[in-house]
Amino acid sequence: MPLTPEQLAEIDALRATPRPTLRAVSEGMEAHLYKAAPVLDHGFVRVIDYMGNDAAIVQAARVSYGAGTKKVNDDSGLIRYLMRHWHSTPFEMCELKLHVKLPIFVARQWIRHRTANVNEYSARYSIMDREFYIPEPQHLAAQSTVNNQGRGAVLEGAEAARVLEILKSDAARTYDHYEEMLSQDGQQGLARELARMNLPANIYTQWYWKVDLHNLFHFLRLRADPHAQYEIRVYAEAIARMVADWVPVAFGAFEDYRMGGITLSGKAIAVLKRRLAGETVTQEDSGMSKGEWREFTEVWG
Amino acid sequence: MPLTPEQLAEIDALRATPRPTLRAVSEGMEAHLYKAAPVLDHGFVRVIDYMGNDAAIVQAARVSYGAGTKKVNDDSGLIRYLMRHWHSTPFEMCELKLHVKLPIFVARQWIRHRTANVNEYSARYSIMDREFYIPEPQHLAAQSTVNNQGRGAVLEGAEAARVLEILKSDAARTYDHYEEMLSQDGQQGLARELARMNLPANIYTQWYWKVDLHNLFHFLRLRADPHAQYEIRVYAEAIARMVADWVPVAFGAFEDYRMGGITLSGKAIAVLKRRLAGETVTQEDSGMSKGEWREFTEVWG
Amino acid sequence: MPLTPEQLAEIDALRATPRPTLRAVSEGMEAHLYKAAPVLDHGFVRVIDYMGNDAAIVQAARVSYGAGTKKVNDDSGLIRYLMRHWHSTPFEMCELKLHVKLPIFVARQWIRHRTANVNEYSARYSIMDREFYIPEPQHLAAQSTVNNQGRGAVLEGAEAARVLEILKSDAARTYDHYEEMLSQDGQQGLARELARMNLPANIYTQWYWKVDLHNLFHFLRLRADPHAQYEIRVYAEAIARMVADWVPVAFGAFEDYRMGGITLSGKAIAVLKRRLAGETVTQEDSGMSKGEWREFTEVWG
Amino acid sequence: MPLTPEQLAEIDALRATPRPTLRAVSEGMEAHLYKAAPVLDHGFVRVIDYMGNDAAIVQAARVSYGAGTKKVNDDSGLIRYLMRHWHSTPFEMCELKLHVKLPIFVARQWIRHRTANVNEYSARYSIMDREFYIPEPQHLAAQSTVNNQGRGAVLEGAEAARVLEILKSDAARTYDHYEEMLSQDGQQGLARELARMNLPANIYTQWYWKVDLHNLFHFLRLRADPHAQYEIRVYAEAIARMVADWVPVAFGAFEDYRMGGITLSGKAIAVLKRRLAGETVTQEDSGMSKGEWREFTEVWG
Repeated sequence: MPLTPEQLAEIDALRATPRPTLRAVSEGMEAHLYKAAPVLDHGFVRVIDYMGNDAAIVQAARVSYGAGTKKVNDDSGLIRYLMRHWHSTPFEMCELKLHVKLPIFVARQWIRHRTANVNEYSARYSIMDREFYIPEPQHLAAQSTVNNQGRGAVLEGAEAARVLEILKSDAARTYDHYEEMLSQDGQQGLARELARMNLPANIYTQWYWKVDLHNLFHFLRLRADPHAQYEIRVYAEAIARMVADWVPVAFGAFEDYRMGGITLSGKAIAVLKRRLAGETVTQEDSGMSKGEWREFTEVWG
Repeated sequence: MPLTPEQLAEIDALRATPRPTLRAVSEGMEAHLYKAAPVLDHGFVRVIDYMGNDAAIVQAARVSYGAGTKKVNDDSGLIRYLMRHWHSTPFEMCELKLHVKLPIFVARQWIRHRTANVNEYSARYSIMDREFYIPEPQHLAAQSTVNNQGRGAVLEGAEAARVLEILKSDAARTYDHYEEMLSQDGQQGLARELARMNLPANIYTQWYWKVDLHNLFHFLRLRADPHAQYEIRVYAEAIARMVADWVPVAFGAFEDYRMGGITLSGKAIAVLKRRLAGETVTQEDSGMSKGEWREFTEVWG
Repeated sequence: MPLTPEQLAEIDALRATPRPTLRAVSEGMEAHLYKAAPVLDHGFVRVIDYMGNDAAIVQAARVSYGAGTKKVNDDSGLIRYLMRHWHSTPFEMCELKLHVKLPIFVARQWIRHRTANVNEYSARYSIMDREFYIPEPQHLAAQSTVNNQGRGAVLEGAEAARVLEILKSDAARTYDHYEEMLSQDGQQGLARELARMNLPANIYTQWYWKVDLHNLFHFLRLRADPHAQYEIRVYAEAIARMVADWVPVAFGAFEDYRMGGITLSGKAIAVLKRRLAGETVTQEDSGMSKGEWREFTEVWG
Repeated sequence: MPLTPEQLAEIDALRATPRPTLRAVSEGMEAHLYKAAPVLDHGFVRVIDYMGNDAAIVQAARVSYGAGTKKVNDDSGLIRYLMRHWHSTPFEMCELKLHVKLPIFVARQWIRHRTANVNEYSARYSIMDREFYIPEPQHLAAQSTVNNQGRGAVLEGAEAARVLEILKSDAARTYDHYEEMLSQDGQQGLARELARMNLPANIYTQWYWKVDLHNLFHFLRLRADPHAQYEIRVYAEAIARMVADWVPVAFGAFEDYRMGGITLSGKAIAVLKRRLAGETVTQEDSGMSKGEWREFTEVWG
């Protein structure tokens, strides 16, 4: 993650001068502010700003005049209750602003989460940097043979080498051509908004992304999930580590009820109750399709 | 605005202990934090938290690594450019959290602004306070005779007295009955979620309301407007005064381009150009309807 | 539900003249169009328009050129898969527009669902009708003694009579006063936007409400739930019956996975697995709080 | 726009069988349904479904029981009034669903409009087609020398030829490599979700996009504007032609007040008033910056 010395100096400058505030503060998040947590080969996640902390969730839920109770126990119980019963509005009272550097094909998945604010680096206005995501060998996976949108075994030997060679050389060549088309040296130079169309989806872009905690939890549940594509999952995991330091109680409830939780259908509940009563249930008399049954038994045996 | 001594003490406690932060700070907004700005007879607006300042708008617009330029001039020019050209995303990078106490009929207008987060005091769960909005005499206006949704002259004499008497006595009686129905003294006591239905729309409720600056400007443009109902306008004006201290440059641009600005239709542009060329234009040859023409001449003579 | 003869005639007129369309049609929903399904004492739900059907969900999920497969089996399997795995966008491709008449205290809960379009009857512009929700005796419930936001036993005898008398007489008196303040007979007449503040929360309002199927399912899951207040639940149930006729396959999946389903926390999964293995687990060694354990055993014994 | 014979047959089949409906119908839009309006070299816009028409806007604004007035004049006046005064909710009561085929760099701009529903063809799940946007010679523009995000003169001669050659050969080569990496002929075959990263931003994707009329007008105002990039503007213009046939009255108001309209700042109003009074105003005493003055005089001379 090659931040330039100038960029590192700007970050250091921002971290050098604490200022007094009367707002709610999260010590855990202050420690992260502005620093770039590296992700993939050239990407990062940086916390630019945050609003609120665990106490702010409680304060909003109670529409209170002060800062909430002093008893941490009560706050924790309330936060877990709110999470368990799908209350969303108190969690929306916390907000996070990130600066993210990420490949375009990851950005295209990410942007599907619409309830967030985004300010992206403009390739109409500016020139893109020569930085491309090239997977590490252990992440160069074959198409899954059982799941149309999944990965199978890691590629090996000559095939892996061929793929890496293609990715690297196409990135280099398309970027050379991008520069060549833009060049105003002895020619007019193609408009930036047109030249960018030659760049592949593994080039890095950047954006500021701002989201409330409720919608962030939704993002993390979907994107830190094992079914998410590896290249977005590592971003979600990096963010999750920051959130754990920011709002530890809310994050604990999220881990228990959402990340570690599961949703059972009415049919699945019925099967489990029969099993608890000692009955042996087969797919045929479960009422579930084969696909549902397979997913069910992966969890419950 | 009768805050209890306990509530005032809680607010004082929150303002007594500044803590260090590395985040962007707005000195102007720190001065407002937690204090209750009174609105109407029992209402208020309090800033609970904020994210960002003028520099944060610039920083997001530039997707920058540091805190933006040092030259205030450049920042101001960019912010005005962004406002003039309807850029919304950089303004979305600032966020405000308010605690508001307001009559229910005002809350029902307010909630129509959907792009915001709300946590309202629950009358299913808790008992409402005995506080009702009773207009001051100078705001007791007659129905407009020209505008179906506007006000005319102020009521006078016996009629004004009758109206005030009705509002006060109905408020008192319905609240007495509310308490009587809830009472568990010698009876079961009606469920809170049912008893509340007897309370009129001028009773006060409270909520936490969180919104980004772009959507807040939209709210202010519609609700601080002379066409807005007086009782919501005073809330918008109280908020506007806080925003002016929070992000003075952005607020200045907002005042010039939105609050002080106007939108001309294609027809209105054509009429103005003919006038500038010395022509006298009448409604008949303006292409405008009578209503449009009246609104046009109110501004341009 | 007193629709006037004029209103009924307008509805009959709308139902009298089918017109040809090339759009996707749902026979089940055509049967509901425009008719008012009565809810509570004066309320109703009417379908004004709809977009899409079960096949449209499949068509969007496949980004297809035609109308989807001919095999209903495949479509059903895909819709159930999408529901099971929390895919939201294909369900967003169906849209419903309703005309609803409902008490204001119900409207205030309803509007909290922000991802919808609303056009409400304006009490600034128009005069409200003299129609109030008065609960039927069997819905006049006492405050729950175990749940702060729930209902207990039905009120009986003299207490029930007193409550009904209060609700009726306060509704009548406040409405009389509303009319008296508005009257321009021998006086100026108070502005409508002010007079409305005297009306209690059980007066009926009306709105057009438009929502996509994904967000409608979310609304139904929360509002057709036994924990929802009875007075909004009956609206949700009336809508659910229409949705069942509109998109029967999607509604079936929704019933199985959402309405009939349940979410287990990581701790709850662990307890169930221990039980399935024959172990007896107590609250103390479950890792759950008392509240969680009580909710858990209500389902699993 | 190479639709396959199978796709054209599917579209013909959908258009061949009108069915009766009781819903509001727009004859103008029925004529467009399912047909692919070609855009750029391989793209298109197809209307898949719509909800509402001009009368539905009026009906919602009046929260009416029937279909609105019979007098077209009244409806038109109301729609123009609603547009002039920035009422948004009645326009939200109409909805449009499109199937769009578009280059990825256009899709990335388009998706920034968040208040819409999207279902995109998945390159994790499926294999992309070999179709790339290659600009026509007259759209191969140089970088603007005055506007960082604009186009200047058209490229000519050898430079234009070089650019076209680059775009074509890089598209062909990266797609060849895409297929080569995916191939399972004698090798495992790279996962689709990884192989796609080699494809440039001018490859075509497809999506279903559904939006309400208010947000669609906002999209059209920004994207059918001369400042928008040509490659998205042609999509906006194709959609605008369909909307003009769908809701001709609302579209007429939109053209007059939005597309043909302009927003004046407070400073600009003051200058125009001075000019109307016969005064000559210069930039120096206008209170405007040079940039604002230049934009002002471009309109007003």
